[in-house]
Amino acid sequence: MSIANELAEKQREISVSEFFERNKHILGFDNTTRALITSIKEGVDNALDACEEAGVLPEIHVEIDELSDDEYKVVIEDNGPGVIKREVPNVFGKLLYGSRFHQIRQSRGQQGIGISAVVMYGQLTSGQPTTVLTRVGPDHPAYRLDLRIDTKKNEPEIKNEEIVDWEKDHGTRLEITMEGRYVRGAQSIFEYMRTTSVVNPHAQLTLVEPDGTRTVFPRASEDLPPETVEIKPHPQGIELGQLQAMAKNTEATKITSFLQKDFCRVGLSTARKICEASGVREDRKPKYLKTDDCKDLMKAFDEVRMVSPPTDCLSPIGEALIRRGLRTEFKDADLIATTTRDPEVNGGPPFQVEAAVVYGADKITEEEQVEILRYANRVPLLYQRGGCVATTAIEKIDWRRYDLDQRGGQGIPRGSAAILVHVASTNVPFTSESKDAIANIPKIEDEIELAVRECARKMRSHIRKGKKMRKLRKKENIIRQIIPQIAEKSAQILDRDVPDYERSIANIMNAVMVTPEITYEQGVGHDVKVRVTNYTSHGKKVRLIVEIPPDGTLEDPNPDKIGLEDNKLSWEEIKIDSGEARTFEYRIRGLPPDDVSNVDAYLDGIDAALIAGAEEWEEDTVPETAPAPQQIDPDEEEITKEVEV
Amino acid sequence: MSIANELAEKQREISVSEFFERNKHILGFDNTTRALITSIKEGVDNALDACEEAGVLPEIHVEIDELSDDEYKVVIEDNGPGVIKREVPNVFGKLLYGSRFHQIRQSRGQQGIGISAVVMYGQLTSGQPTTVLTRVGPDHPAYRLDLRIDTKKNEPEIKNEEIVDWEKDHGTRLEITMEGRYVRGAQSIFEYMRTTSVVNPHAQLTLVEPDGTRTVFPRASEDLPPETVEIKPHPQGIELGQLQAMAKNTEATKITSFLQKDFCRVGLSTARKICEASGVREDRKPKYLKTDDCKDLMKAFDEVRMVSPPTDCLSPIGEALIRRGLRTEFKDADLIATTTRDPEVNGGPPFQVEAAVVYGADKITEEEQVEILRYANRVPLLYQRGGCVATTAIEKIDWRRYDLDQRGGQGIPRGSAAILVHVASTNVPFTSESKDAIANIPKIEDEIELAVRECARKMRSHIRKGKKMRKLRKKENIIRQIIPQIAEKSAQILDRDVPDYERSIANIMNAVMVTPEITYEQGVGHDVKVRVTNYTSHGKKVRLIVEIPPDGTLEDPNPDKIGLEDNKLSWEEIKIDSGEARTFEYRIRGLPPDDVSNVDAYLDGIDAALIAGAEEWEEDTVPETAPAPQQIDPDEEEITKEVEV
Repeated sequence: MSIANELAEKQREISVSEFFERNKHILGFDNTTRALITSIKEGVDNALDACEEAGVLPEIHVEIDELSDDEYKVVIEDNGPGVIKREVPNVFGKLLYGSRFHQIRQSRGQQGIGISAVVMYGQLTSGQPTTVLTRVGPDHPAYRLDLRIDTKKNEPEIKNEEIVDWEKDHGTRLEITMEGRYVRGAQSIFEYMRTTSVVNPHAQLTLVEPDGTRTVFPRASEDLPPETVEIKPHPQGIELGQLQAMAKNTEATKITSFLQKDFCRVGLSTARKICEASGVREDRKPKYLKTDDCKDLMKAFDEVRMVSPPTDCLSPIGEALIRRGLRTEFKDADLIATTTRDPEVNGGPPFQVEAAVVYGADKITEEEQVEILRYANRVPLLYQRGGCVATTAIEKIDWRRYDLDQRGGQGIPRGSAAILVHVASTNVPFTSESKDAIANIPKIEDEIELAVRECARKMRSHIRKGKKMRKLRKKENIIRQIIPQIAEKSAQILDRDVPDYERSIANIMNAVMVTPEITYEQGVGHDVKVRVTNYTSHGKKVRLIVEIPPDGTLEDPNPDKIGLEDNKLSWEEIKIDSGEARTFEYRIRGLPPDDVSNVDAYLDGIDAALIAGAEEWEEDTVPETAPAPQQIDPDEEEITKEVEV
Repeated sequence: MSIANELAEKQREISVSEFFERNKHILGFDNTTRALITSIKEGVDNALDACEEAGVLPEIHVEIDELSDDEYKVVIEDNGPGVIKREVPNVFGKLLYGSRFHQIRQSRGQQGIGISAVVMYGQLTSGQPTTVLTRVGPDHPAYRLDLRIDTKKNEPEIKNEEIVDWEKDHGTRLEITMEGRYVRGAQSIFEYMRTTSVVNPHAQLTLVEPDGTRTVFPRASEDLPPETVEIKPHPQGIELGQLQAMAKNTEATKITSFLQKDFCRVGLSTARKICEASGVREDRKPKYLKTDDCKDLMKAFDEVRMVSPPTDCLSPIGEALIRRGLRTEFKDADLIATTTRDPEVNGGPPFQVEAAVVYGADKITEEEQVEILRYANRVPLLYQRGGCVATTAIEKIDWRRYDLDQRGGQGIPRGSAAILVHVASTNVPFTSESKDAIANIPKIEDEIELAVRECARKMRSHIRKGKKMRKLRKKENIIRQIIPQIAEKSAQILDRDVPDYERSIANIMNAVMVTPEITYEQGVGHDVKVRVTNYTSHGKKVRLIVEIPPDGTLEDPNPDKIGLEDNKLSWEEIKIDSGEARTFEYRIRGLPPDDVSNVDAYLDGIDAALIAGAEEWEEDTVPETAPAPQQIDPDEEEITKEVEV
């Protein structure tokens, strides 16, 4: 017998559950601590998805009982739509079975692996079946089933089945016994629940720990996030092989109807244009397309202009929610800068990136590496930080340019900052089935970098403003001590009146200072006073612009001769004499106390070198509809020269 | 219709190929550059495994042709045993099909996914089938088949099949067309081939790049690595669920025969002890064991003493090969410290860790992070460095203790060093199917840490020895300038003879210096001279121990009254007067020039503070069979006191 024959006798099919049983670390069951966390995560993610699909405000109860030294019983109960009895064995007892894999829209679960893997891990380590209790509505009975997975075949086995009483009208309860280790700390079930609650304020989560401690993460919002809508593939986001498979399996009998029915954003006229551009006849049968025809169609997809795919398949967290979440975590932060990028929909699955940078919280020190908080489709990512595109994108940025400490201009920077990244997508490209880290897809990396840089710029201007102001205040303090003494002494010696030295002080200070002051009153809102002081030797004519937080309502601006556009409030042609100060006031309603902690102010019509406590108004930040005034102040011209000397 | 019913209609089975087609980044097809590397890697790993299984010295030919801007044809041809025709479609056209998954022994491939995934990626991006040409022996015809995968079903489709002429007696040739991008640099096909060649010196690898450049990585050794042997599971390495599945599927009809037949290291007496300890009757039918019986057996497995599993299922690279490989990479390194740990076989799949630390090569600077070279089962790992247990184990070590620069005592250290880690296992726990990073299994992390620390200690003593020697040499230089001048001046003034100042110099130097000198002559070997100089004020009686590289042959030690044990050469009771120097010589044959670049020397019987250029001989490093002499030198006692003052 040839060696090839000998080898052939060992060839065998491997069932997917057999594969994952052996390689359970790929699913996040690396060790007993993590296995417990992964189990809860899969259960809660599933429950949240199910509730949202059914339009129910989620109420999820998690309980972990220690049975013996390293054996735990895990209970996850939700008020979701329940699972019909026929589907229970497959949903919970078969890997690669589910409803979300074939839908193009954002959801937490997608692979049809997670919860069955928990069932499999439970039976592997405890020998026990999983108990599923489920009810689909008040007119239906509640069923209790005991399930196992035959891993050699990847098929469920029902061990026991009965109708039981349940006080819930609808929902699902899982009871799984498994080997585990319960811990607290940075990577823990508690942390997962807490961070999940932060970005899912519509959910009420309850955790009962093995020692009996019961924590409720209460619902903070009665609004379900907008339901994500399933879309069809967009022609510009698919691959050749996919197109071939779609053409082979379509029910359409002509290319034009195939393009219209099986893709989004393709109407009859676009379909015809595609056929024309590709040279493929409109009435060809999709089934009989050759590889070269498909290649021609692929080229035409890129040539023909079509509308981008709809973005309601995505559900970003939103800047307000991110800020609120981060504020609970970093109570005394000086700055929370956030951004939500536009969805990126051209080519590949649609995705959207959000980012935030927190600066100056007490809990993070200058010496430590900045904390990185990662989320994907509203789920916190706790493991594999180093292998995640969010981390590599951050490491690539030269943070020294943003005034953080970073050796060699690469790697994770150090300083009292934290960075949050959220990637929402119809198909988040995780590096493995355990969904810990996002793969290094260049487009996603680019978007993360842009988002983080946007926040970083805000942080830098905040840091620099702070530094400049501290320096100027120090200078002012010294000047205000010395100049009066000199003036008095000189006056005494010369036997004259003490001269007015305010102008001299301004002359030496040589800056226009912007100092905001925020007070908050319950039921009233945030009162903001912005004081502009001209510490230069000449009168100035400037424009003051302040940003109003997008979720707040502006009231009572004073003086009220103002412009308001694009969340930017502006006072035009403010004249301030040398040594003079003017105050501008407004109120913001509708935001929680911590949401307004600083004011983004800009000055226009004055040299940047003279501005302190605000930023120079830059042309490119001006909305196109309102071109910035191009007035040149003769005084300003002069000053500029002084500065140049 | 209830919501649960609506949801149920969307529930569907997902085929494993459909899953991986969507999530191809999990298999290492994140982007076009990487897809090309992954394809070559899977093909070459497969070819190496097949050759080794058949006992053939591998000759592997890789060729990459650029067909158009981003389309390449990849050819991988080997001289392996070939694949019988019946198995070709499954082996190359079905995911989760293979011969190595069910065998417990070290091999590169295991999952039965890799090469079929390449076929799938090819058809997805180019629309083309893969061509397989294979022949199992001179008496058999060569077959050429064109293959596709029906991803909806995970089944192969044969598109074309013919008998062809082939000049090879046996082997396999794959031709796959795919989208890709060919690059050079740190993460490239060239690098993969080069580093693979380094740890597989028995293979001849040829690479023809798209521009026609042909590189041969020649065979450096005619010896195949020892064939790894398939073992049965060891009772102490399995999990409850596995035991249950094994009991259910066994052909044995009694517990005792089940234990003997289906496990390794269990004979009749051990099997009986297990039954006794567990309270499970010997003649019970394995099929009918209950969960509690299995739990009792599991407990008994831990209680009953049994021999560890055999380790011939593993194939480490070996220290000599690691050193040779690293030397080609780091030509002018000052030090290459290596270690091969004992296999770790208790609990879980057997594994073995090897490590090396390179110090002081020109190509790495003091300022940069150290380079980390990772291997698993002789395959270089190029991606996901941050997510790999090899990296996290290195990051946890406080490298400041080993004289490398590391901020805060964690993270990747900086300095002119490189670290190599090799994990060999019957089942390497990769974090994903792309096999880029090893999961964080605590036992593996511990072993890596121990191995790396072992090498790090050698590096530290090398660094310190160097520093101490440089300091002493500087001191000696100064003393040798000043003392003679003082002596002469004083003699002149007092009109006396110049006194003998050698003893005074020794007094001031206060050290015993060990200075090795290595010369290499082609055909002769390495001649080593170790000079021991007593720069202290008293005579010393010491023992000198030098390490002989394990692969070299010792010749002509002089003086020849020596001890040789455990690769350690020692001269006992060496008496050296104050100011005196003695030389010890030997020759090492059979090693390449670069393999002996420094001498690990130890002194015994003298206070560590007085030793320069060698290390103190520590009790715990002494082999148990030869206890270290416990002589106390009265002189030494005195000196010690001096030092303490």
